[in-house]
Amino acid sequence: MIAQLKQQVFEANMALPHYGLVTYTWGNVSAIDRQRQVIVIKPSGVAYEVMQPDDMVVVDMQGDVVEGKYRPSSDTATHLALYRRYPQIGGIVHTHSTHATAWAQAGLAIPALGTTHADYFYGDIPCTRPLTPQEVEQAYEKNTGVVIAETLGDGNPLHTPGIIVYQHGPFCWGKDADEAVHNAVVMEEVAKMAWIACSINPRLRLIDDHLMNKHFSRKHGPNAYYGQR
Amino acid sequence: MIAQLKQQVFEANMALPHYGLVTYTWGNVSAIDRQRQVIVIKPSGVAYEVMQPDDMVVVDMQGDVVEGKYRPSSDTATHLALYRRYPQIGGIVHTHSTHATAWAQAGLAIPALGTTHADYFYGDIPCTRPLTPQEVEQAYEKNTGVVIAETLGDGNPLHTPGIIVYQHGPFCWGKDADEAVHNAVVMEEVAKMAWIACSINPRLRLIDDHLMNKHFSRKHGPNAYYGQR
Amino acid sequence: MIAQLKQQVFEANMALPHYGLVTYTWGNVSAIDRQRQVIVIKPSGVAYEVMQPDDMVVVDMQGDVVEGKYRPSSDTATHLALYRRYPQIGGIVHTHSTHATAWAQAGLAIPALGTTHADYFYGDIPCTRPLTPQEVEQAYEKNTGVVIAETLGDGNPLHTPGIIVYQHGPFCWGKDADEAVHNAVVMEEVAKMAWIACSINPRLRLIDDHLMNKHFSRKHGPNAYYGQR
Amino acid sequence: MIAQLKQQVFEANMALPHYGLVTYTWGNVSAIDRQRQVIVIKPSGVAYEVMQPDDMVVVDMQGDVVEGKYRPSSDTATHLALYRRYPQIGGIVHTHSTHATAWAQAGLAIPALGTTHADYFYGDIPCTRPLTPQEVEQAYEKNTGVVIAETLGDGNPLHTPGIIVYQHGPFCWGKDADEAVHNAVVMEEVAKMAWIACSINPRLRLIDDHLMNKHFSRKHGPNAYYGQR
Repeated sequence: MIAQLKQQVFEANMALPHYGLVTYTWGNVSAIDRQRQVIVIKPSGVAYEVMQPDDMVVVDMQGDVVEGKYRPSSDTATHLALYRRYPQIGGIVHTHSTHATAWAQAGLAIPALGTTHADYFYGDIPCTRPLTPQEVEQAYEKNTGVVIAETLGDGNPLHTPGIIVYQHGPFCWGKDADEAVHNAVVMEEVAKMAWIACSINPRLRLIDDHLMNKHFSRKHGPNAYYGQR
Repeated sequence: MIAQLKQQVFEANMALPHYGLVTYTWGNVSAIDRQRQVIVIKPSGVAYEVMQPDDMVVVDMQGDVVEGKYRPSSDTATHLALYRRYPQIGGIVHTHSTHATAWAQAGLAIPALGTTHADYFYGDIPCTRPLTPQEVEQAYEKNTGVVIAETLGDGNPLHTPGIIVYQHGPFCWGKDADEAVHNAVVMEEVAKMAWIACSINPRLRLIDDHLMNKHFSRKHGPNAYYGQR
Repeated sequence: MIAQLKQQVFEANMALPHYGLVTYTWGNVSAIDRQRQVIVIKPSGVAYEVMQPDDMVVVDMQGDVVEGKYRPSSDTATHLALYRRYPQIGGIVHTHSTHATAWAQAGLAIPALGTTHADYFYGDIPCTRPLTPQEVEQAYEKNTGVVIAETLGDGNPLHTPGIIVYQHGPFCWGKDADEAVHNAVVMEEVAKMAWIACSINPRLRLIDDHLMNKHFSRKHGPNAYYGQR
Repeated sequence: MIAQLKQQVFEANMALPHYGLVTYTWGNVSAIDRQRQVIVIKPSGVAYEVMQPDDMVVVDMQGDVVEGKYRPSSDTATHLALYRRYPQIGGIVHTHSTHATAWAQAGLAIPALGTTHADYFYGDIPCTRPLTPQEVEQAYEKNTGVVIAETLGDGNPLHTPGIIVYQHGPFCWGKDADEAVHNAVVMEEVAKMAWIACSINPRLRLIDDHLMNKHFSRKHGPNAYYGQR
């Protein structure tokens, strides 16, 4: 069971350099086993070139290592905070992908400008408020999760399957690790498109509501008709 | 006959990730057999990594599946509307390629700025008007084809072998599936060049008429002299 | 002799897709045999994937095919005009590389902003004036060469081993085909850097004269000390 | 001993084209053996495709070749000036990587805008002042090292493990050649992110001090907790 989840998390982590979202040891993916109340996450600072499925670290909901020879990702507390708050989330990914991170540094939400965006994200991709000095000093990684949840609120996190943390970068999620990575790839792409579109026409308009609703519901919810069923 | 068209459409679809125009399951290519009055099109939501020629779906002009184990692309009705309207078109491709989509999000035609553009597109690449809420609600995919035709008008569609749909992305076409993909690659490239050129010099001028005419006619029409004859 | 030059021109042409300067059949490289008064040039509209050394076309100084089963590049007359005017040139390349072409569409010289530029190009990379309707109608390709020479003037063409043609794209040259391609790669790179630099700081300054002189003379002329001698 | 250092410097040099930081013969990496008071550096103008470990050149602290069949990098005097001034530095790399060079041409420091930057660079990445005509004429390469040191001052060079030289490009360093290349990859990435972020929002703010301190100290110093210990 855990071996299978380790394999999934390993493969999801390896997808990050494949899709050009990370370099060196940056980025991390986790998945949760809700029944056993443990998460499987990338070890901290291990290079993708040498990483093996068995290097994944199993951590309980308090952040203590249950299994694994390595220390878990330094962002583990952020992942745990999100899993605790949102039962719908099965996998989480954090990267410093170029264009999503640029929006985080710009301190602006990634605006919903087209159907590529609306196929996955319902509305703008929000940017969190800055963390306070106290929040950074006392429990930085946990508070990163807290401020993401504060921004996201009580809605369905799978309708906004990712967010950018101010001056930091993107966190994305999904029903499992694979879908979380998929959403991270999409966020990077729509972040790039939005930058270029705003550069071409600074007076452009947000996507029309009826077009956004159509595209999101083509792929999500009871009336979805995209793909094979 | 249909087996051969399936193979062509399969190869044209596989060219999309090869040229960097799509990721995951995005994008779709079709071709028409005008004699049999059927089109062959990519199945909906199937990943390029596992797609086989036999996965292509055969659909009649009303959109009903004639042959194939999968559901056809969710954009099938757009393709059909264009084939019905323009007898010159033999293949159609839809992508969300980065720079062409950015112009669609900007809501602006891709301006004809140079010979790279004029070698393939005669004049600006137009951007459609927004679809109305009614058009989106009632028959979204078909109406996407209708608004493309409304924008393109009665001219020769092979003189403007592609268009961008407002807040959505590019549709391209050609005498067959292969030429449609070729035009999609060119549109993405001229969309990128036009963005950069406008960024370098916001006061630039459209291509001179005599230069545009020369380049388009070097490659198209009775006096073409590019390539081997 | 000619077989060797065909091999060199073939390899130089194949370097264009390798360095990302062309797609499909775009671009062309030639070299001259000054003794025999012939040039070897890429055939028109032949795809790089299938091109062979023996497909190169041998053309005399009047543009007539001396040897080869294909028609020569449609830009042959431009190459010939430059070889006739400048005895220092041994190889010529034409591409529609993205960033150099964007400057051509912007109608502006690529400004000399740094040492990367000065290592190869002494001063700005000029942009030609527009061709007149008459020049385009009467002998378009030859007149493209004429307007390049008009812009370049009587100086040493190896000090400005490339130029951009207004609303068209770059032509580069060197003492042989290989060096011409090298200069085309550099021009594309400095065109990209100049775009980004101007975007970061629209009030930037041209490279200081003493720095430009130092870098150009480090690599060129009697006191060069870069590389192995 | 020297054979091992040659191998390390060779591999670090080969990492430059791997990470897309150089083309052709551009760029160079060196490392120092403090005990023997020699450095190992890339030969000048040798292509990466054919370079071998044994081609690395051993040079003493006066710049005289101690071992090797080639002339050392033309930038050797810059490397030596930095090794002499900063005993903490074990490896140095120089490239003309696209985005870092664009900032150098823009004549502006790369601003510290986010955690990606702060994980490696403490504060802005400074841009040197212009070299004077005299400095360029008399001992250009040595004076490039001198102006870098003038800009960097007496702080710990490993807290600002790289700088951009006005109208030229980046120099980076680290405790060894491998870390120097790592920092060059990071500088190029944060230079790209900073360009895009400033383009998205010209009124963005520098990274909050508490966030910068947190991220830099997560990876550096006595309380670091990133990676495996």
